[in-house]
Amino acid sequence: MSGLTYKAAGVDYSRKEDALRRVKERIARTRRPEVIGDIGAFGGLFRASGLADAVLVATTDGVGTKVEVARLLDRHEVVGTDIVHLCVNDALAMGAEPLFFLDYFSTSRIDPDVFARVVGAMADACAVHRCALLGGETAEMPGMYAEGAYDLAGFLVGAVERDRLLDPATVREGDVCIGLPSTGLHTNGYTLARRIVADEARRMGIDDAACLGLARPELRRGTLGDALLAVHRSYLEEVRTLRAVAKARSIAHITGGGWEGNLPRALPDGLGAVIDRSTWTVPPVFTILGGAGGVPTEEMWDTWNMGIGLVAIIDRADERAALRALPDAIAIGRVERDAGDRRVRFAS
Amino acid sequence: MSGLTYKAAGVDYSRKEDALRRVKERIARTRRPEVIGDIGAFGGLFRASGLADAVLVATTDGVGTKVEVARLLDRHEVVGTDIVHLCVNDALAMGAEPLFFLDYFSTSRIDPDVFARVVGAMADACAVHRCALLGGETAEMPGMYAEGAYDLAGFLVGAVERDRLLDPATVREGDVCIGLPSTGLHTNGYTLARRIVADEARRMGIDDAACLGLARPELRRGTLGDALLAVHRSYLEEVRTLRAVAKARSIAHITGGGWEGNLPRALPDGLGAVIDRSTWTVPPVFTILGGAGGVPTEEMWDTWNMGIGLVAIIDRADERAALRALPDAIAIGRVERDAGDRRVRFAS
Repeated sequence: MSGLTYKAAGVDYSRKEDALRRVKERIARTRRPEVIGDIGAFGGLFRASGLADAVLVATTDGVGTKVEVARLLDRHEVVGTDIVHLCVNDALAMGAEPLFFLDYFSTSRIDPDVFARVVGAMADACAVHRCALLGGETAEMPGMYAEGAYDLAGFLVGAVERDRLLDPATVREGDVCIGLPSTGLHTNGYTLARRIVADEARRMGIDDAACLGLARPELRRGTLGDALLAVHRSYLEEVRTLRAVAKARSIAHITGGGWEGNLPRALPDGLGAVIDRSTWTVPPVFTILGGAGGVPTEEMWDTWNMGIGLVAIIDRADERAALRALPDAIAIGRVERDAGDRRVRFAS
Repeated sequence: MSGLTYKAAGVDYSRKEDALRRVKERIARTRRPEVIGDIGAFGGLFRASGLADAVLVATTDGVGTKVEVARLLDRHEVVGTDIVHLCVNDALAMGAEPLFFLDYFSTSRIDPDVFARVVGAMADACAVHRCALLGGETAEMPGMYAEGAYDLAGFLVGAVERDRLLDPATVREGDVCIGLPSTGLHTNGYTLARRIVADEARRMGIDDAACLGLARPELRRGTLGDALLAVHRSYLEEVRTLRAVAKARSIAHITGGGWEGNLPRALPDGLGAVIDRSTWTVPPVFTILGGAGGVPTEEMWDTWNMGIGLVAIIDRADERAALRALPDAIAIGRVERDAGDRRVRFAS
């Protein structure tokens, strides 16, 4: 008889409770008037009155192996913010604004401090976006994850009035592509970036963290670590502004799969986009990584956002108004007839 | 120059696309009239008209390390069904019925066959529950998970008319606890169960899979593997029936944390429950595990459901009607004044 307990087997509810207690107040600050009851019930409650003419938009995403960089450099807050921003942007791409969010945090052994830093930042990002953090699951699964690793998934429900829904089917030839700058890789292509860093570190005979901490002239003596841990930008305010001044037809959030993987999702069959890459400067983090890894150009554009995190497709007549209203927006291309096996054609 | 690509770094989009293609038709069968557009957009769309008087109920959960047992015995379908059922039951505990579901599947290297078996079963379970599978994220994260491991999280949104919302605050002293049998451990306490199996296997000098495959007299010569891979029971039909004949005040889904961890979630402050354990027979899977592991009795009841997966708290006047309408329901106890540090008191 071993006299086993759940705790002895590796699952300790007191760690989970401790972790949750540390973020309770920050979660409470995400409350919206539609929320009923408290965290801790079997489900989170959100009144639907007021949504009668709306369409619900549901998105889910994860931060991928950016968590590994955050972990290596002890910067866990970043991915907590990221997971909210990237779900918000996915909802924005359908025309919706956020209502509520739930998270799934899983690991082999809960570290209440790390959990509180991740989920605390997540709660703060929800509060900024007036998005209720309505619930979550914290899973402790011994042996499932590599030592110290954790994974993070987010789930967001937003809403949009039926007539404000963005629909790629409305896009027409000649429409203009408006690009909004990214802050870096956002949350995509980190496995490739990490591999490049690991290879470089090995060549230099240093460890990955040291390589990430080197001052780089191309980054004005900043580090690759800082560049890789820039927060995934939320475009909520920009999209609101854009839609107030321009007829937006559709939006693409440039995430996993890069340009060819995402821009066509905002286009109807038969149409493609021609993008003039000379209209912006690719940020140095991409050129450093691409150069160090010898990554083929096409592969870079198929993996990373290359400096533009969101593309709005608008009526040509509204181009000037859009650019005036959004100081950092760039007219990066236009919609044209689809010709060839790739729907995004680069003009330069 | 290494000439690195994303694929060479371990992330292969063609594996993901292959995986999704295999389940596309089964996902399409989960479609409801409220759904707009197709899978593949940045967010799933669901019309909210018809929900004006409703409350949305959002739940998220994971299947925990039951995936490890499913993997060991090559029975991946089980956890796909489980993840839907457990989220459905959490929504039921608030009084809601399912509207739509999203999943998050993450692993170090996508195996399209395993993915299709898991997500195919998930889609089928959604279809049975008239729950639209509205989206999902499939994450490939090399090195994050132990070899061959994957994790699975579900997000479900349901709805309930405001006046049908179940509210623990309405529970009164003297109300009756109606228990519905579970099919086994459902999706909780698997880390403890697996540890017990691993210890037993080591004592016997066999591997875990062989130990799970032994014919057990207590299971009428069935195996522990089969018992551990029984599907998490969905109580949707039973709760519908119950609510048609009885005034249900609140419901507890007995999951992680067992009895003390869940039944109090369906009770207001100041009230507890007295449960008569002689009213049902604890299924042999629990007694086998408890015996083999020397698990203290209280620990078993604080970890596993011990044979009752859902407890409905109803008006005493409706007890007979409830038991008549639900052939396998059992009157297992009643609500009483809370006395002591534990809110669930076992009378036998």
